[in-house]
Amino acid sequence: MQNLINDTFIRTLLKQPVTRTPIWMMRQAGRYLPEYRRVREKAGSFMNLCTSPELACEVTLQPLERYRFDAAILFSDILTIPDAMGLGLTFTEGEGPKFDKPITRAEDIHQLVIPDPEVELRYVIDAVRLIRRELNGRVPLIGFSGSPWTLATYMVEGGSSKSFSKVKALMYEQPQLMHELLDKLTQSVASYLNAQIAAGAQAVMVFDTWGGILSTDDYLEFSLRYAQKVRALLNTQQDGQQIPTILFSKGGGLWLEEMAASGYDALGLDWQTDIHTARQRVGASVALQGNLDPAVLYAKPEVIAEKVQNILRGFGQGSGHVFNLGHGIMPDMNPEHVAAMVEAVHTFSPQYHL
Amino acid sequence: MQNLINDTFIRTLLKQPVTRTPIWMMRQAGRYLPEYRRVREKAGSFMNLCTSPELACEVTLQPLERYRFDAAILFSDILTIPDAMGLGLTFTEGEGPKFDKPITRAEDIHQLVIPDPEVELRYVIDAVRLIRRELNGRVPLIGFSGSPWTLATYMVEGGSSKSFSKVKALMYEQPQLMHELLDKLTQSVASYLNAQIAAGAQAVMVFDTWGGILSTDDYLEFSLRYAQKVRALLNTQQDGQQIPTILFSKGGGLWLEEMAASGYDALGLDWQTDIHTARQRVGASVALQGNLDPAVLYAKPEVIAEKVQNILRGFGQGSGHVFNLGHGIMPDMNPEHVAAMVEAVHTFSPQYHL
Repeated sequence: MQNLINDTFIRTLLKQPVTRTPIWMMRQAGRYLPEYRRVREKAGSFMNLCTSPELACEVTLQPLERYRFDAAILFSDILTIPDAMGLGLTFTEGEGPKFDKPITRAEDIHQLVIPDPEVELRYVIDAVRLIRRELNGRVPLIGFSGSPWTLATYMVEGGSSKSFSKVKALMYEQPQLMHELLDKLTQSVASYLNAQIAAGAQAVMVFDTWGGILSTDDYLEFSLRYAQKVRALLNTQQDGQQIPTILFSKGGGLWLEEMAASGYDALGLDWQTDIHTARQRVGASVALQGNLDPAVLYAKPEVIAEKVQNILRGFGQGSGHVFNLGHGIMPDMNPEHVAAMVEAVHTFSPQYHL
Repeated sequence: MQNLINDTFIRTLLKQPVTRTPIWMMRQAGRYLPEYRRVREKAGSFMNLCTSPELACEVTLQPLERYRFDAAILFSDILTIPDAMGLGLTFTEGEGPKFDKPITRAEDIHQLVIPDPEVELRYVIDAVRLIRRELNGRVPLIGFSGSPWTLATYMVEGGSSKSFSKVKALMYEQPQLMHELLDKLTQSVASYLNAQIAAGAQAVMVFDTWGGILSTDDYLEFSLRYAQKVRALLNTQQDGQQIPTILFSKGGGLWLEEMAASGYDALGLDWQTDIHTARQRVGASVALQGNLDPAVLYAKPEVIAEKVQNILRGFGQGSGHVFNLGHGIMPDMNPEHVAAMVEAVHTFSPQYHL
């Protein structure tokens, strides 16, 4: 991997030999870090932080100063696309995301326009360019987007939901309208990720946060099908390099075989899924990323080291495992416990790459 | 099944031949029914409703007046045991359950006393006796309890939780203390269910609402292991009748093989799990209960009928399928949509029992 001082993460996603298991952490740039909270406060609002390339770059790099992570991930939010479509995204403390103009009628879907990433999402693409420059080849930069299905849930519900009653009513009563929405989101996600790749993202990940609320049939029809279409539209050759792709459906442990056949290079695993069984099920077709229970980090460092070893042993010998949590780190976590996890991966993983 | 006019539910759990697929619904006695809301209002608080055998009996029977259900389920709450242990259960509107005295120290666990169901939980056992008498053999009565693990989560968190940080910290840092708690809860749950059986419950169900938040290893060690111990302690022969047992771990679709080996007669399936695949995985060992997405009931009656048929076709020919939702009905549901589901099961299921 030219231009990369540490290419362990990229090589692992492509199942090329490495000398140890790479590690990064979902939400590694986040509220558990005091230095993040200082920048967040300076920004005023979460959206100000996301939309300022300089501040987004600053918080993206923070965890790399503290920990021996093998990748940086763009600091942004999964809901930038609906915001760029004009739905008006805001975050209220403790309540999560809200859209001023959620989708309530068929016309709202007919009228949605696919954003131009270099215009309406320019702040993200500028952040990618800036982070890539500031990283200066230390580790690769991961770009990302929400999956079409996951974006659709927020757009129809107007924010977070417990029952997902509105989006499911739409899906069950007017499936053709849901497909129209998902088609537009698929075009938008692919174009957004391609712009991130063109700007310097060296791997991309699709977060399907809400795939797991669907029945098996509905997951295949409304979530995975569109994640697969996104994948088919990605420009994964860039300057002679292959850009690896990762799909993460939270709650998707039941569907690993189907996910493995969707064209992505790697699957993210939530912590419920046993990584040993998962590897047996998907065979040699894809790499796996995960999957320590984030709550293990509440335990003391010795326990963390033991649980890290269980995951490494579960995956077993050979390349194709990116260590991560099975979900984002909790905001009240002790940063020293993250260090214990990172050091355990550095200490105990080389034996699986002999 | 002597003394039962309609024994389709019991026969199905025991995989004996029937002429159609039985149906009942989780939370069938609940807020979606206006007649329930009237009794709930009269009771003043949710706990008043639970602790009055007459009112609990009244709401238990309500859904049977409206719908052709094949079983009644005791109206109660899964948290009666911790309340009987002295933790002080209250419900605040829109916030869910709260314990006045959650478990915070090792001493709290050491000092827990296993309740005598005929004393501290007398109101539940009296309700079972009363409901059984009022049912007068129309359909069987299901008794239930929360699983040891699920009760432990509420007792340590003090109520509902999103991150389960406290109970997981205890589990990871002091597993022996967690096992002590789970042992006491296992004794309590078994004695509680046996008292319900002695009082007239004709089937019992263990609700493991939070098993699905665990990693595979932790699920087996902290949830399923204790559900299995409960099962081993149940008196499933009563007056010459076999009392069928049902285990429902929400989010347990990954672990059906292990659940099927735990001694229960039937497994509850959440809606994410494909029932066709599930039947192939567990083979002839257990019956299956479920598993329509509760959100399907937001759709119009024709769509509901179609989705019901998908589930019936998914399970296929033969006995061993109790139709249900994959989770409790939502409180804002239209009661006429429940009727559409019930009628679809009555109309379309006989062809699978020829």
